[in-house]
Amino acid sequence: MTYPFAAIVGQDEMKLAMILTAVDPGIGGVLVFGDRGTGKSTAVRALGALLPPLNMVAGCPCNSASADAVPDWVTLADDKIVSRPTPVVDLPLGVTEDRVTGALDIETALTRGEKAFQPGLLARANRGYLYIDEINLLEDHVVDLLLDVAQSGENVVEREGLSIRHPARFVLVGSGNPEEGELRPQLLDRFGLSVEVGSPSEISDRIEVIRRRDAYDRDPAAFADKWADAQNDLRARIVAGRSALPATEAGDDVLHDCAALCLALGSDGLRGELTLLRASRALAAFEGAAQATRDQLRRVAPLALRHRLRRDPLDEAGSTIRVGRAVEEVLA
Amino acid sequence: MTYPFAAIVGQDEMKLAMILTAVDPGIGGVLVFGDRGTGKSTAVRALGALLPPLNMVAGCPCNSASADAVPDWVTLADDKIVSRPTPVVDLPLGVTEDRVTGALDIETALTRGEKAFQPGLLARANRGYLYIDEINLLEDHVVDLLLDVAQSGENVVEREGLSIRHPARFVLVGSGNPEEGELRPQLLDRFGLSVEVGSPSEISDRIEVIRRRDAYDRDPAAFADKWADAQNDLRARIVAGRSALPATEAGDDVLHDCAALCLALGSDGLRGELTLLRASRALAAFEGAAQATRDQLRRVAPLALRHRLRRDPLDEAGSTIRVGRAVEEVLA
Amino acid sequence: MTYPFAAIVGQDEMKLAMILTAVDPGIGGVLVFGDRGTGKSTAVRALGALLPPLNMVAGCPCNSASADAVPDWVTLADDKIVSRPTPVVDLPLGVTEDRVTGALDIETALTRGEKAFQPGLLARANRGYLYIDEINLLEDHVVDLLLDVAQSGENVVEREGLSIRHPARFVLVGSGNPEEGELRPQLLDRFGLSVEVGSPSEISDRIEVIRRRDAYDRDPAAFADKWADAQNDLRARIVAGRSALPATEAGDDVLHDCAALCLALGSDGLRGELTLLRASRALAAFEGAAQATRDQLRRVAPLALRHRLRRDPLDEAGSTIRVGRAVEEVLA
Amino acid sequence: MTYPFAAIVGQDEMKLAMILTAVDPGIGGVLVFGDRGTGKSTAVRALGALLPPLNMVAGCPCNSASADAVPDWVTLADDKIVSRPTPVVDLPLGVTEDRVTGALDIETALTRGEKAFQPGLLARANRGYLYIDEINLLEDHVVDLLLDVAQSGENVVEREGLSIRHPARFVLVGSGNPEEGELRPQLLDRFGLSVEVGSPSEISDRIEVIRRRDAYDRDPAAFADKWADAQNDLRARIVAGRSALPATEAGDDVLHDCAALCLALGSDGLRGELTLLRASRALAAFEGAAQATRDQLRRVAPLALRHRLRRDPLDEAGSTIRVGRAVEEVLA
Amino acid sequence: MTYPFAAIVGQDEMKLAMILTAVDPGIGGVLVFGDRGTGKSTAVRALGALLPPLNMVAGCPCNSASADAVPDWVTLADDKIVSRPTPVVDLPLGVTEDRVTGALDIETALTRGEKAFQPGLLARANRGYLYIDEINLLEDHVVDLLLDVAQSGENVVEREGLSIRHPARFVLVGSGNPEEGELRPQLLDRFGLSVEVGSPSEISDRIEVIRRRDAYDRDPAAFADKWADAQNDLRARIVAGRSALPATEAGDDVLHDCAALCLALGSDGLRGELTLLRASRALAAFEGAAQATRDQLRRVAPLALRHRLRRDPLDEAGSTIRVGRAVEEVLA
Amino acid sequence: MTYPFAAIVGQDEMKLAMILTAVDPGIGGVLVFGDRGTGKSTAVRALGALLPPLNMVAGCPCNSASADAVPDWVTLADDKIVSRPTPVVDLPLGVTEDRVTGALDIETALTRGEKAFQPGLLARANRGYLYIDEINLLEDHVVDLLLDVAQSGENVVEREGLSIRHPARFVLVGSGNPEEGELRPQLLDRFGLSVEVGSPSEISDRIEVIRRRDAYDRDPAAFADKWADAQNDLRARIVAGRSALPATEAGDDVLHDCAALCLALGSDGLRGELTLLRASRALAAFEGAAQATRDQLRRVAPLALRHRLRRDPLDEAGSTIRVGRAVEEVLA
Repeated sequence: MTYPFAAIVGQDEMKLAMILTAVDPGIGGVLVFGDRGTGKSTAVRALGALLPPLNMVAGCPCNSASADAVPDWVTLADDKIVSRPTPVVDLPLGVTEDRVTGALDIETALTRGEKAFQPGLLARANRGYLYIDEINLLEDHVVDLLLDVAQSGENVVEREGLSIRHPARFVLVGSGNPEEGELRPQLLDRFGLSVEVGSPSEISDRIEVIRRRDAYDRDPAAFADKWADAQNDLRARIVAGRSALPATEAGDDVLHDCAALCLALGSDGLRGELTLLRASRALAAFEGAAQATRDQLRRVAPLALRHRLRRDPLDEAGSTIRVGRAVEEVLA
Repeated sequence: MTYPFAAIVGQDEMKLAMILTAVDPGIGGVLVFGDRGTGKSTAVRALGALLPPLNMVAGCPCNSASADAVPDWVTLADDKIVSRPTPVVDLPLGVTEDRVTGALDIETALTRGEKAFQPGLLARANRGYLYIDEINLLEDHVVDLLLDVAQSGENVVEREGLSIRHPARFVLVGSGNPEEGELRPQLLDRFGLSVEVGSPSEISDRIEVIRRRDAYDRDPAAFADKWADAQNDLRARIVAGRSALPATEAGDDVLHDCAALCLALGSDGLRGELTLLRASRALAAFEGAAQATRDQLRRVAPLALRHRLRRDPLDEAGSTIRVGRAVEEVLA
Repeated sequence: MTYPFAAIVGQDEMKLAMILTAVDPGIGGVLVFGDRGTGKSTAVRALGALLPPLNMVAGCPCNSASADAVPDWVTLADDKIVSRPTPVVDLPLGVTEDRVTGALDIETALTRGEKAFQPGLLARANRGYLYIDEINLLEDHVVDLLLDVAQSGENVVEREGLSIRHPARFVLVGSGNPEEGELRPQLLDRFGLSVEVGSPSEISDRIEVIRRRDAYDRDPAAFADKWADAQNDLRARIVAGRSALPATEAGDDVLHDCAALCLALGSDGLRGELTLLRASRALAAFEGAAQATRDQLRRVAPLALRHRLRRDPLDEAGSTIRVGRAVEEVLA
Repeated sequence: MTYPFAAIVGQDEMKLAMILTAVDPGIGGVLVFGDRGTGKSTAVRALGALLPPLNMVAGCPCNSASADAVPDWVTLADDKIVSRPTPVVDLPLGVTEDRVTGALDIETALTRGEKAFQPGLLARANRGYLYIDEINLLEDHVVDLLLDVAQSGENVVEREGLSIRHPARFVLVGSGNPEEGELRPQLLDRFGLSVEVGSPSEISDRIEVIRRRDAYDRDPAAFADKWADAQNDLRARIVAGRSALPATEAGDDVLHDCAALCLALGSDGLRGELTLLRASRALAAFEGAAQATRDQLRRVAPLALRHRLRRDPLDEAGSTIRVGRAVEEVLA
Repeated sequence: MTYPFAAIVGQDEMKLAMILTAVDPGIGGVLVFGDRGTGKSTAVRALGALLPPLNMVAGCPCNSASADAVPDWVTLADDKIVSRPTPVVDLPLGVTEDRVTGALDIETALTRGEKAFQPGLLARANRGYLYIDEINLLEDHVVDLLLDVAQSGENVVEREGLSIRHPARFVLVGSGNPEEGELRPQLLDRFGLSVEVGSPSEISDRIEVIRRRDAYDRDPAAFADKWADAQNDLRARIVAGRSALPATEAGDDVLHDCAALCLALGSDGLRGELTLLRASRALAAFEGAAQATRDQLRRVAPLALRHRLRRDPLDEAGSTIRVGRAVEEVLA
Repeated sequence: MTYPFAAIVGQDEMKLAMILTAVDPGIGGVLVFGDRGTGKSTAVRALGALLPPLNMVAGCPCNSASADAVPDWVTLADDKIVSRPTPVVDLPLGVTEDRVTGALDIETALTRGEKAFQPGLLARANRGYLYIDEINLLEDHVVDLLLDVAQSGENVVEREGLSIRHPARFVLVGSGNPEEGELRPQLLDRFGLSVEVGSPSEISDRIEVIRRRDAYDRDPAAFADKWADAQNDLRARIVAGRSALPATEAGDDVLHDCAALCLALGSDGLRGELTLLRASRALAAFEGAAQATRDQLRRVAPLALRHRLRRDPLDEAGSTIRVGRAVEEVLA
């Protein structure tokens, strides 16, 4: 029984970012920076358990929604549809590329005259979340691969002329400790949002965290009962946001603000602007607003831009402060 | 014949930490910092021999307590129950991951149509202790794996679509020499308790250590006889503590003290608080107290917090002293 | 549906360089220097979609134009000609040499008495473009191999006495971030042209980029319709330039200017002069001019020379400025 | 024909240490520090030839003393007992772990239904000596393994669920040049004794060494004859010492002195005290004394403690001098 | 159609060195130092095409001149003699030793009872030239191997007791950029001659180079026609030089001058003198002189000695200048 | 046809050392320090051709002198004795250990029920010379192995319980350039003698070297004829020296001088003394002297001691000078 998402004390920014990816998975992944022991992996698991269950073809390794979405290399006895929780897949440290992408066994394929594909973690994460703890420690080429697949939504495995493909639409959530090894700017830029988490500084918050955690450890079922209503309410708002999203617009002034903000911050490239726009719309949809305004823009700006700043040797302020100042000036 | 735990001279903190994990294995592992030759490996082996024997299904590689706990990949002729000492498994330096987790032989599995799993050290350590000497020298990914399994209580081995699992509930005891290579803060934080050991500074203590050790070396059986009563007494108290634990509570003031202590020390995350709470309750249970109070909290604070401090460049005092000062101030 | 080349905002130099290689692929590859997120990979994919489709023998792994161009190691049922987009092949980071060149399976060849060649990315790129993102991160020997094949137009795979060859005429497009690892001068010199790209500095340009991209993301088909005319116009001019090229000459004064420019810049070797000459002619052909003059030379000079300068410790100016100054002085 | 141990000129400390291990192999190994060409390997080979021959089951790879000590994985035609010299096994540099421990061939084991164990150097060294020249150059994990086995007296080889064991009781003798790479303190501490050797500084001694060596090189048999009596005498004293050892005691004052010495020297751990005690008793037994006194303690102190000192930046004196001073003060 | 050797603009020293090796291949290889793009590889390919064709046994992998020179491991249907251009073989970067020397397939040899040798690049280069671009980047052991074979004139491949040999007489031509990694003095010394090349500094020369190259690129056949006479003339002089060489002598004064020059320059070893002598005779033969005199010696001195100087920290002058000064002084 | 040893100009020290090893191979190997191109490899090959041919069993891979010396793993059709030159074996750089020691093929051995040993370079060098050019570049463990075998005179190859042995008595000759990487003192000490070679500094000598080499290159047979008498004379003196050696003595004064010299020089260990003694006797035998005196000692001292000195930071003089001074003082 997973810890209820709604019972997480504080960490509002992390919870917001996760909810935005639940409303619009196209925003891109979330990077969570922060100390150990601040509940990052607990939160992503809790999010999976919070989201409405998915209908899937029973036994399909890619969690396909219907029989005609099942890839041709999958053989199933029947097409029974079952309901399953949103998948949250952990990427273990030291994982091999084969295990991530799935392995194509040529020998078997040739001998038996059939495609012999052993699906990997990308298949299992389809339609859900892929979580990487301490992304700093993962090899660059695996991170590259994950970001490529996350963006294209498809996993293609080719070996010696054989080619296997399957949908792999998932949100990448990575955690990293900024004190241990930096991430390449290229990688940072390809994450949609980033958040910072920390231990609560108020003693009452800390007591509340311990109290809830201890209660959960001692009797998980009772704890879940107590939080069921809050969970249901939050789930309903996410589902509503998803429905509202396609019709949620952003005016030209918001577009202008996005560009002006990024220009003021000197962020490289244009992914910053696009993410700002998209996250603002998702937040508006989640909140039931008809269209995104500066209000949403202000709130998502730190999440969308903080990890896209160049280091400025003349400005010792942290990224969050620099984004905040730019928001003040540009959106004044 | 193992050296009796009760005959260990001094080293009270190490003995206390080990006893607490015997009362509540959920406290997490123990890190033992200290010079070579201070009896760390002797102590953990002695603890295994001290604890009451376990009932196990004969021949089960995971030490299962009853026939229905035996994993499905184990084939046994019958379900005879035997009594065996609490397992204490040594992790050799340079051990391979396969040897730790067990190896899944796909070839065999495919050929013979059955699961071919060669269980590893994690299976052997189930329901007991896993000891790593010089944990600094172990590869990070193996330590990560051990901590993951120790926390989840289950070992899952997956290869090419096959999946084997078995319970792996054990207490991890690691020894390290702080002078040789540091441990990553992430790893430190995931150990429940830590202790510092050293050679006795009193000549009389040293003579007593040599005298006992020499006596043991020359006639182990006679030595064991001499210490049998002390061993039995200690064993009985541990067994009693285990029974009392579920009913042992900690008041709100203790909860508050836990958070205040950690906040004062600036320890990252919230594992510190939770371990303090748990260790206080275990100590209370071992001592036959109805509930944990500041008295227990005081005594377990160094064990639970010492390895969770950030280095403070302005404060040259060692971790133990810093914890001690915080205890003085916060629990004054 | 690919983003339309004609809809790319700004980035005139990059677009010019790509168009020149479309008019005369013999100019050599294009190196694109610039920050992440500036649309490099979008542009090369867009170019492939812009160019007129090619006629190919259906099923030929090298995109052969006619049945007699199909290599002898390819077995096809019939020689049907199909029309396909100009190929644009991505070279994934960490790619193996086998995957690039194709793999020759000796075992199979000996057993079955036939050539067993598994064609690679070079075959797939024939008659099109090969794109390498972050060329700095590719291993030197693979870059060498790519440049060798790009220059010779043929891929030869030899193993244990067997020899397979197929045409591999393609334009290499590499992107690199000058802030991450330098390229060896040898490699730079073997690229025909280089361009620098960046995020637009005008807010109106940035808004336009986001607006177009967002429009495309939300409804790719409608966006393509809107830009169809511009695409057709550009395509027609490229096709016309290709036809005009063989008859486009360059006078002796242009030849003199080429040499004088390179001498003034102290560029090593003579590839600079030859590329200048060739790019000037291609530009003239694209623009419908009868022969290349100083006008074309001026405009292609930065593209052809910028990456061929030796570093000059006494001159801190960037390469582009240095080329500009030389053009001013020599062509005054 | 080996050079006679009794004919070694000088090097009294090294000879004493070797004799002590012959009287009580439980003292632990000997580390020999010193320049090249000082006869270290000659000495250990000479010791092997000096010691009384052992009775062994013919053909047993572990030199078992009697038929019932032969491990179950050894198949012998009969149990004939033969007399063989004490084994002295050389550990070649660059040796693999398999060669040291023996190799377990699973394939064979499965195919033939029998244990297929290829015993290694540890088996061959059982009941004798294992010599490592330039131990600094051996990989740490092999040294660890050797010290573990030397201490436990048993070699256990496990692979994929099979487990082979055989006795491996031997004395480890390692030579090292302190000028080339240091040994980890952990390793030093696990050797019982250490000695320092050097070339003789007296010309008459050097002439005597050359004269004897040249005589031996020119006619080994005649040289052996000349030294037969001295050899027999020394062998007899070692045999007598072995018999007397179990009854040789050490008084409480010696125990106190051991602890006081180690405390004064600040040696880590308690192995120093235990080795002092044991070596004193062995020396007493070798010399026919009824019990160990300060006299023996004084003489073995440098051998037992020299390699256990922490480096003291304020005291430039060598280890031997520091031990000597402590002996002066403590045993004054 | 290769670029005509006679049409190479300037680069007189490189052309001279190549011609000398064509007259007397025993002079040893040629090292070409210089910037990229200065036509090094063009020149060596042009030389191969300039030289008179060779008669070879058709199908012999070693280019044998007659049937009895064909190695015994070659099986040919008949002994037809064909005429083929002088081979010029490129050594690709990253080449494996097997590919250079040829591979001996023991498996096949044992199974089929015949020698199974897959000849390599050394066989293909026999009687011709082997060209290594960027020799600095080749692994030392491959360069060693090439120099050994070039000197002995025979390639011997041994594996597991089988031994294959074939003639491998070729001239090694290596190019290197002195700015990238140095060559070991040992290697330098084993090349017979070295030359320095650069881009022409006269604008008229540069224009001429571009003009010729562009003409060649646009119509290779017409260009070859234009230069046919010059090619034939040069070829005839090389052939005449080869015939005259055995009878071309060098007087004692030249011998003295050789030694005096090398002594003055402090070149290590005596290969300098021997190469001077040999190159002087080859130049005399090429020029139709009856014997070598100081005139030839003067001209070949820079080529034969430049790469054999020790670095002189007190003399900043380049090698060429230092050789020139020594020639002035010694041959004054 | 090898260059005649007697025709080598100068290099007296190198020639002396080589002759001494021919008279008494037990002196140990020779290290030749010096620049490239000074004829080191020519000399060792010339020595092999100078020495009287050996009688060998035809086809024996170890050059056995008679049928009963042929190892049991060699199968020969008959025992015909043939006469062959003294073997001189080159150790190629990058050689594998298998190729040096020979390879034991377990598979074959098990399958065919016979020993399958592929002898290596050590077998081929038996009774001759093993030459290593640039010994600095050889891996340490191979050098160790060579020195071990050279000393023991036997090659033992063990793998998985099989054991192959054959005699391998050879003299190791290594060349090294002191400017490139040093040799470990341990290795230096295990070579018997060392010499320094250089290019001649007299012009007349250099001319003589070139003249002879050029004459040899142009007509090897005529050159050999001219030097046949000198070769025969030298060969005869070596053969006579070999016969006289066993009866050649060295008095006590020489023994004293050996020790005094080494003590004065502070050479480590006692190999220096032993080599001095042995080389003095060999020189006396070669010169027909009845016994070795100070005269021989003086002349061999630099060869035997130069490479055994510790570096003395207070004495900048080279090793040869330091040995010379010690000889002056001690033998005054």
